[in-house]
Amino acid sequence: MKLRAPFLALLAGVLMTTTATADATPRARDLGIPFMGMPGPLNAITDVGGVTVGQVTLKQDLAGGKAVRTGVTAVLPRGARTKDIPVFGASFALNGNGEMTGTQWIDESGFIEGPILLTNTHSVGVVRDAAIKWRVMQGGADSSGYWWSLPVVAETWDGELNDINGFHVKPEHVFEAIRAAKGGPVAEGGVGGGTGMICHEFKGGIGTASRVVKVRDKSYTVGVLVQANYGVRETLTIAGIPVGQELTDDMIYHKPGGPNGDTGSIIILVATDAPLLPHQLKRMAKRAGMGLARVGSYAGNGSGDIFAAFSTANANAGQDGAPMTVTMLANDDMDPLFLGTVEATEEAIVNALIAGRDMQGNMGSYVKGIPQAKLLAILKKHGRLLPAKK
Amino acid sequence: MKLRAPFLALLAGVLMTTTATADATPRARDLGIPFMGMPGPLNAITDVGGVTVGQVTLKQDLAGGKAVRTGVTAVLPRGARTKDIPVFGASFALNGNGEMTGTQWIDESGFIEGPILLTNTHSVGVVRDAAIKWRVMQGGADSSGYWWSLPVVAETWDGELNDINGFHVKPEHVFEAIRAAKGGPVAEGGVGGGTGMICHEFKGGIGTASRVVKVRDKSYTVGVLVQANYGVRETLTIAGIPVGQELTDDMIYHKPGGPNGDTGSIIILVATDAPLLPHQLKRMAKRAGMGLARVGSYAGNGSGDIFAAFSTANANAGQDGAPMTVTMLANDDMDPLFLGTVEATEEAIVNALIAGRDMQGNMGSYVKGIPQAKLLAILKKHGRLLPAKK
Amino acid sequence: MKLRAPFLALLAGVLMTTTATADATPRARDLGIPFMGMPGPLNAITDVGGVTVGQVTLKQDLAGGKAVRTGVTAVLPRGARTKDIPVFGASFALNGNGEMTGTQWIDESGFIEGPILLTNTHSVGVVRDAAIKWRVMQGGADSSGYWWSLPVVAETWDGELNDINGFHVKPEHVFEAIRAAKGGPVAEGGVGGGTGMICHEFKGGIGTASRVVKVRDKSYTVGVLVQANYGVRETLTIAGIPVGQELTDDMIYHKPGGPNGDTGSIIILVATDAPLLPHQLKRMAKRAGMGLARVGSYAGNGSGDIFAAFSTANANAGQDGAPMTVTMLANDDMDPLFLGTVEATEEAIVNALIAGRDMQGNMGSYVKGIPQAKLLAILKKHGRLLPAKK
Amino acid sequence: MKLRAPFLALLAGVLMTTTATADATPRARDLGIPFMGMPGPLNAITDVGGVTVGQVTLKQDLAGGKAVRTGVTAVLPRGARTKDIPVFGASFALNGNGEMTGTQWIDESGFIEGPILLTNTHSVGVVRDAAIKWRVMQGGADSSGYWWSLPVVAETWDGELNDINGFHVKPEHVFEAIRAAKGGPVAEGGVGGGTGMICHEFKGGIGTASRVVKVRDKSYTVGVLVQANYGVRETLTIAGIPVGQELTDDMIYHKPGGPNGDTGSIIILVATDAPLLPHQLKRMAKRAGMGLARVGSYAGNGSGDIFAAFSTANANAGQDGAPMTVTMLANDDMDPLFLGTVEATEEAIVNALIAGRDMQGNMGSYVKGIPQAKLLAILKKHGRLLPAKK
Repeated sequence: MKLRAPFLALLAGVLMTTTATADATPRARDLGIPFMGMPGPLNAITDVGGVTVGQVTLKQDLAGGKAVRTGVTAVLPRGARTKDIPVFGASFALNGNGEMTGTQWIDESGFIEGPILLTNTHSVGVVRDAAIKWRVMQGGADSSGYWWSLPVVAETWDGELNDINGFHVKPEHVFEAIRAAKGGPVAEGGVGGGTGMICHEFKGGIGTASRVVKVRDKSYTVGVLVQANYGVRETLTIAGIPVGQELTDDMIYHKPGGPNGDTGSIIILVATDAPLLPHQLKRMAKRAGMGLARVGSYAGNGSGDIFAAFSTANANAGQDGAPMTVTMLANDDMDPLFLGTVEATEEAIVNALIAGRDMQGNMGSYVKGIPQAKLLAILKKHGRLLPAKK
Repeated sequence: MKLRAPFLALLAGVLMTTTATADATPRARDLGIPFMGMPGPLNAITDVGGVTVGQVTLKQDLAGGKAVRTGVTAVLPRGARTKDIPVFGASFALNGNGEMTGTQWIDESGFIEGPILLTNTHSVGVVRDAAIKWRVMQGGADSSGYWWSLPVVAETWDGELNDINGFHVKPEHVFEAIRAAKGGPVAEGGVGGGTGMICHEFKGGIGTASRVVKVRDKSYTVGVLVQANYGVRETLTIAGIPVGQELTDDMIYHKPGGPNGDTGSIIILVATDAPLLPHQLKRMAKRAGMGLARVGSYAGNGSGDIFAAFSTANANAGQDGAPMTVTMLANDDMDPLFLGTVEATEEAIVNALIAGRDMQGNMGSYVKGIPQAKLLAILKKHGRLLPAKK
Repeated sequence: MKLRAPFLALLAGVLMTTTATADATPRARDLGIPFMGMPGPLNAITDVGGVTVGQVTLKQDLAGGKAVRTGVTAVLPRGARTKDIPVFGASFALNGNGEMTGTQWIDESGFIEGPILLTNTHSVGVVRDAAIKWRVMQGGADSSGYWWSLPVVAETWDGELNDINGFHVKPEHVFEAIRAAKGGPVAEGGVGGGTGMICHEFKGGIGTASRVVKVRDKSYTVGVLVQANYGVRETLTIAGIPVGQELTDDMIYHKPGGPNGDTGSIIILVATDAPLLPHQLKRMAKRAGMGLARVGSYAGNGSGDIFAAFSTANANAGQDGAPMTVTMLANDDMDPLFLGTVEATEEAIVNALIAGRDMQGNMGSYVKGIPQAKLLAILKKHGRLLPAKK
Repeated sequence: MKLRAPFLALLAGVLMTTTATADATPRARDLGIPFMGMPGPLNAITDVGGVTVGQVTLKQDLAGGKAVRTGVTAVLPRGARTKDIPVFGASFALNGNGEMTGTQWIDESGFIEGPILLTNTHSVGVVRDAAIKWRVMQGGADSSGYWWSLPVVAETWDGELNDINGFHVKPEHVFEAIRAAKGGPVAEGGVGGGTGMICHEFKGGIGTASRVVKVRDKSYTVGVLVQANYGVRETLTIAGIPVGQELTDDMIYHKPGGPNGDTGSIIILVATDAPLLPHQLKRMAKRAGMGLARVGSYAGNGSGDIFAAFSTANANAGQDGAPMTVTMLANDDMDPLFLGTVEATEEAIVNALIAGRDMQGNMGSYVKGIPQAKLLAILKKHGRLLPAKK
């Protein structure tokens, strides 16, 4: 991937970076970590046609040891058309120690309307209302006078690295994340909503992957994007190997002054172009948890493991008017999509870990990126490493 | 309606009546009880095109005071085609002190496959397996060798009037109920699965009603069928009037030797020809509980208040093969269907009560039909009685 | 009730009224409208010991015809102790066209933590984050460094009367609503979060009621508070009489330029001192919908009908540490609580309507209070009016 | 383990074996397959005090190539006291292509009442009604006259090896399975309800495992029992290694005349002595799916993956009468139990596979047991094999 200069700005006193594209860092499978199934060309949620992603990263060191390490990630299911055309969607909470606003309406209506926004736990509100403001600013929505919005905003907690109670996310950051959304490669690791996130006690954050599957001679794509902030070290499993048992340095939990157990969460978004109805998308959302399980999660009590799935097919489904004609796959044909969801979720999480870099944060906190050489050595020892790609 | 002679048979030693048509008894609105909305021509679930109903009634007095007062009601969403073509469907448990088998698959797949069968609590098993046997007997199902069935069988408890632990329902009764299923008027009150049922401490059982609603210049029908066996007297409400407060004779509960509170249940089936997707049908099923509330239910702890809804549209949806094209209503257009469900449910329950007749049952038990003259007098007193129809 | 002068303030340029107590207006049952069951001394949610309510009302006429008609209502399940001691709780969405944040964690954990806040649809975010800020300001929460909050904020849409996209609710209004929370009578109608709300096309808003029920010689209280903003006129039902069919003046919907159908919602909170476990509280929440049905709702597609229930018993349940001892009622003993929930919900909604007063709002909008004399005349005609109380 | 002679009988013309104890076959960890966590003394669901298991195996070759390969497994949460004392419980359907009767009441009441019974798909009905008959035969249940039962019966489909539409399970087999229930080692593989089951295209069936976990210096046990009948070969994963990719002989699916994809299912029962409330047990049930994911499941469309969890603590909770005192763990203390559930589920499934033996069945069908030597060689190659136990 090409490296493109990020857009920098000072907004509300905080240094904002708009991450235009992913950087050139090798991703998990580039290093030889084995995964099953066939990824799409970008191995990203943006392989699902029309899906765009925009990310705003907020990083600044403040007086008194405080540090801003947070941001916003916007996923637009239909790119620029997202503001007017909903997608069929569904949500599922594997462990609801978290927030995803808008889920009552998703599950009632079968639609996700507008962008999906990821941020930190204590900024869900500002991001939610900003999504409404943004829509009003686009015009049209309010023309009848009878219009309301129930935005979808999800979170994980970055209070270890980020001055979370400083409430540094502002409406402008949301506007910028939406504006910046585009297709193509997606930046991973400590960017956007994932800026200050921690996963299995290593630096985590945003990760993505995709699978192309065949159903009766047609190809469909499943794309996954995660904001990974969950997990304890001891259960970390990569390529089936319990590597967390050997990677025991630099742990965060169970240390003096550290938290007693998992304080994390993971948000998983599943996109597909397969024509699935809302109740079928709920089935897809559930499978995200099975991919999560493969990386060693047991959905700890403190973890908000909340998932949403959507389909970009059936663009006409959300319009008002006469009965609409929509397309659906047979339930009997869903297995490849289920398996693709499991596989892409697993890889997206590992991608988030591989993209993680050492980060110093709020009040002297420090989290290490996963030590890649050591990780690869363990996998090699177990015959679970492929040749690296150039 | 014309009275037609029922078919009688002795099967497994129990007198079985196949109720071919409803008898000539006036129904609730014939008596002048006011309801809102416009019913279909039969004011029955069979107003929804293709839906058929078959009922087998088992009544016999046995030695030692024991008495059989039970049966089976079969609802075939697509009539004779039900065995091969599923309907989109959904279920909802308002209070799950009851059983409706097959709901895990309904809610997972979005389909109801095969007939829906209603019986007593302790005969759900025999009816369920008999539904499989019946399907095998029809041939074809098992041709690939890889076929299984998860029949939908629901129940309410008739142990007050019926020798429920005598297990008098046999597979043959199920076969006959399915065989006898037809369109046209539906017998109400103490017939089929409703034979021994009690509602608000009066004789209850099967009731049905329908509504024709307009959505953007198209007419759709909502049909409801209930097996009503719930409720205490004191909260019985008809046409908005708390008539149960004045109809205080012949109560069953709170009497010496009687049960302590509500021992009943109600199964509500909602059918429509409107093209609704499974998640929209779940919304329909929920509204059945709002019609139930209007008659005075508070969904008592002992009450199994379990509902299913299905749509006869989209007959192609259940086939295997290439992606299918199905039709759906806009969510914004569902209000008339919601209201129709509430109204038809209310009327179906009152119809079950009006069709109830005094019944002597197991071990000297006795339940009175609702005293119609007294009921009508109360409604008249409150200006809630229309002129009776001839 | 005594009238006490409300506290007025100009904050963020909007006139804020802290409604200290209810005014002297007669409530529904004072007028002779009949309800079943026995209310508590205040006939309010505050009859449940420890529950406090604070309301901030925002009303101001702005330039260009714009008008502020909104606010915040805070319900503190344990009064001042709410900030530290959670309650067992549960939520239920009858129709999820609305938002109640925090429900994933309520339903996962079985607890409601912190105040429950009601406001307008487009201010949920600011209120949510303000609830976190408020908690941080109280100190203690963040002492370990590992603390996060998932506040419970619910909404209904006041865009007919209120300049909802002006985003007039500010964090300070939340702080004030929480600060002002107290026991005693609760102001009803167009106050707090209910300021700009409309119910069955009459002025609606906040309403409350309670029931005292007996379970095995012990008395328990069920208290309900609603923010009522739902419903079309034609189905409005009071005391069982479809009064909406006769009160056909001053309708809002189906008029030229008006919305096509129900644009409302209702939030219902159910409080009790009965020792119920979380799964039992979910059962309570479901019964709120049955009370709602009695007033004529069919849970229209546009209506966000979302409920939460909590128990003030078992104050020790939320503490960390050794296994805790908690108390629970037998399921078999819940019927009086179920019935009390249905009854109190019905009365709370009617109270909201009776407390409604004509209101002029945003851009010339106008909503009438229910015409009490005409209403009472209809009820009297149907023999459904008791003598009024002085 | 000692081998004890099974009890044989001819009942209803079918050879019935009551499997009194497990045989001497080494289990997965005896072979050196690595698992995490500490098992209880029996590494079985019966490590949870009071839990008993009874199994009846039906095997007979009939005329015309038909073969009986089925049975019943009974799990009694409180052993002999199960008939009178319920347990707190919950259910969860990961993929509902299956049946578990009684779940509406489990999830409503928070209790599992009576034995939990596992059998084949087409015998759920007979087993369900037999459970009622059995209870009536014990006396007492029906003393008030107001008693009903909603038994918990779950299934997987054995139509590949078993003449499933011959309906060979009879009430007497249920009585015998319950009668035979006892503590101690549990027979695994092709016994009881698992007799004809297939897992990842190898012989599967019953498997069990347990974990002992520490919570604040107290030890609790989590026991799991599975009836494993799910999965395709290609995703089979043991000890993290995708062994199914190398064990490609003797596959069943995707062969000429074979089924198109997964036709299986898995029922998972989770027992614990930790004092968990019903909503906490639902959390436990969800984690079973994470253990399942580790073995390579993606919850295929055809798979009925339905789980139930129960706690043997709080034996007093189900009694009628005054408010009861029950004990609960803090949510914050549940992580070890979650992890134990994941680990024990994974091991129970692998145990079912390891106990599987080649079986010839209905109409010439044939399924191989997993080739242990080859499996162990693969694991050894990947450094994932411990020394075998004697």
